[in-house]
Amino acid sequence: METIPARRGKAAHVKRGQSIRIVNTHGAQVVDTWAFTAGMLTEFMSMEHTRATLTSLRPKVGDGLYTNRRRKILTMTEDTSHGDHDTLIAACDSERYILLGVKEYHDNCTDNLFAAMQSLGLTPPECPSPLNLFMNIPWTADGRLSFDPPTTKPGDHVTLRAELDCIVAMSACPQDILPINGRTGTTTEAHYEILD
Amino acid sequence: METIPARRGKAAHVKRGQSIRIVNTHGAQVVDTWAFTAGMLTEFMSMEHTRATLTSLRPKVGDGLYTNRRRKILTMTEDTSHGDHDTLIAACDSERYILLGVKEYHDNCTDNLFAAMQSLGLTPPECPSPLNLFMNIPWTADGRLSFDPPTTKPGDHVTLRAELDCIVAMSACPQDILPINGRTGTTTEAHYEILD
Repeated sequence: METIPARRGKAAHVKRGQSIRIVNTHGAQVVDTWAFTAGMLTEFMSMEHTRATLTSLRPKVGDGLYTNRRRKILTMTEDTSHGDHDTLIAACDSERYILLGVKEYHDNCTDNLFAAMQSLGLTPPECPSPLNLFMNIPWTADGRLSFDPPTTKPGDHVTLRAELDCIVAMSACPQDILPINGRTGTTTEAHYEILD
Repeated sequence: METIPARRGKAAHVKRGQSIRIVNTHGAQVVDTWAFTAGMLTEFMSMEHTRATLTSLRPKVGDGLYTNRRRKILTMTEDTSHGDHDTLIAACDSERYILLGVKEYHDNCTDNLFAAMQSLGLTPPECPSPLNLFMNIPWTADGRLSFDPPTTKPGDHVTLRAELDCIVAMSACPQDILPINGRTGTTTEAHYEILD
C-alpha cells in the first residue's frame, strides 16, 4: 500500500486492465481524485460528461467514469462505503482559503494535483473538476447543497478499474475549516494500491 | 435585439455594469451560456466553483456566478421563467451525437462556442461546463437525473449583470434527439440584448 500523506497528493500510472484501490484509512478523509489519459493530458475524467452519461449525480459500483471526449476511462468496481461521493464541487484552491479567511498559505487540492503530477514529470493543462471520493455533499429537493462530514468508516475503500492507460492523481483534502473531513477538522493520510 | 440563429452560437462583449438579457423567444429553446473574463480567457465562469459558493445546484435571482478563480463574473438579476436551469450537464459535442447514433456531422454547442468566439477574433482555451439556461434537468432524492422538456413559455428571459468586463457566449442548443428542446425535437432561434 502506498501512502497519500495528510494534506498532500500522489499520482500513479495505471494501465488499462489494472485497478487502483483508494483507502479511507482513518475513516473520515476526503480524497479528491482525477484521471488523465496517458497519451494526452488534455483528455481527462470529466464530472459534467460523466453525469450526462450516467444521468446521475454520482457514480456507483458498475458505473463508468467518462472523459471530456466521452470515453470511459475508469469503472467503479468496488465500494465498501455508503456511496456518498461528490461530483459537484471544485477542488479547493488558494482562493477558496483566502475567501474562508485564512491569512497564510493553506495546503489545497489544486496545488496538490500539480505537485503530484510534477513528481511524474507531467503538467496537467488545468485542474479538472475532481471526483471527490468519500465527500458527503447531500442535496435537497429544491437543490440546496451542504458540506457535511463523511459517512465512512476506517478502511472503507473504492476500487477503480482503468479502461484506458491513464494517470490517476489523488489528494488527501486539507480542508480543515469546513467539516468535510469530519467535525474535528483533522486531516489525515490515506492509502492506495495498484491491483493487477 | 440580436438573434442567436437556430443551432448556432453568438458571443458579445459585456462591460462591467452592463447586463445581457437572454430571451427564450419561442419558449422551448435551451441556451448554453459561457462567460470569459475579457483580459484573460483562461479565467471563465465555472459551474463547479459556482455550486460550491452558492451551495446550490442552480442559481436563482440575486445569485452570483463565479469563475474558476472564484471571482463573481455575473449576477442573475432577473428570471421570468420557473428557474429550471442546469449547471450539471456538459455542452453537447460531436462525440455526443456519434454516441446517440448520428452518422453525419451534427451541429453542437461546443463547436458553436468556438465559432462564436472566433467571430470576435478570440479562441477560448477549452469548452467550460456551461450554464444551460432554460434546460430542465430534474434530480431525484437518490440522485437520478433526466433530460426533460423545458418548463418555459415564449418570451421568458434571464438577465445577467456583468461584474467584470467579460465576453458572454451563447448557443441555441441543436439537440433534436433528446427532448431537451421540447418533445417535437424542434430547435429554434433565441435572442439577446445588451442593457446599459
